[in-house]
Amino acid sequence: MSDGSPLPIRVQTLTRAGFAPFGDVIETDGAEQRLINGGTTTRYHDLARVDVAAEGGRPLISIFRGQPFALPVAITMMERHPLGSQAFVPLQKMPFLVVVAPDEGGRPGAPLAFLVEDGRGVNYARNVWHHPLLALDAVSDFLVVDRGGAQANLEEASYPHPYVVTGA
Amino acid sequence: MSDGSPLPIRVQTLTRAGFAPFGDVIETDGAEQRLINGGTTTRYHDLARVDVAAEGGRPLISIFRGQPFALPVAITMMERHPLGSQAFVPLQKMPFLVVVAPDEGGRPGAPLAFLVEDGRGVNYARNVWHHPLLALDAVSDFLVVDRGGAQANLEEASYPHPYVVTGA
Repeated sequence: MSDGSPLPIRVQTLTRAGFAPFGDVIETDGAEQRLINGGTTTRYHDLARVDVAAEGGRPLISIFRGQPFALPVAITMMERHPLGSQAFVPLQKMPFLVVVAPDEGGRPGAPLAFLVEDGRGVNYARNVWHHPLLALDAVSDFLVVDRGGAQANLEEASYPHPYVVTGA
Repeated sequence: MSDGSPLPIRVQTLTRAGFAPFGDVIETDGAEQRLINGGTTTRYHDLARVDVAAEGGRPLISIFRGQPFALPVAITMMERHPLGSQAFVPLQKMPFLVVVAPDEGGRPGAPLAFLVEDGRGVNYARNVWHHPLLALDAVSDFLVVDRGGAQANLEEASYPHPYVVTGA
């Protein structure tokens, strides 16, 4: 590990349980269902914990358009948002790569990588280390729900040695 | 108009200006752009006024799965949410029909109908009369951002005579 070569990370399948320490998986499977609108609509209810109200924050709806990456993907830094959650839902079922890390004394620990497919989304909990958006395959649009407010809400940290996501 | 036959409504093209009295059009065209993530992502910023905090409300992220309707569509009632906005963004660019109405003394006035295509979404402003979800073509999923809270947040009103959306 001291030769400077990137440390490999294998891609994991995304599950609610596996992702729970980092936030929510936004998906219809397993969600609370409510039949509404005279039976013509199913509401899959309350799929993510939107946590943006700290210090007068407000929820934002934005669209992120991400350039595609191809595996292997080097992971040299992470970011987190100390004041709010951040949800990403792909708008055309495009796959993307989610890379998160536990906090270790104010720095990101070893990353975990998840492949997100089939139109599922994720919501990073407030202050969870994650890599910036990693679209795959093609330019991809995501609906993003995060926090608006005047305060600084971005922290970045570089890894002392690089990691690389090698694939499934 | 007294013979009971439905009053026809023609479908309009959705524009920000035309929809402004009722809420926001959620689209990248004309939005504020921010290049982020080292230039790999464009953020189309703050596309809708999420207004859900009244009386201790919180933002919800849900998915609505709507059964498809076919034109002509009868419009016999409307609803509104007195405590919060409600945003709909189609998850696979499926077209849908948006029917809204001005308020006339606590009742919905004559409806306006908009065809929403190309992946655009809408955000109904708080307390704006609108018809429940009218997906077109096929079963369609929408990401919905609206209000959670214990208070009653749904008002419904029937029209004394029916309307019908006849098409473009």
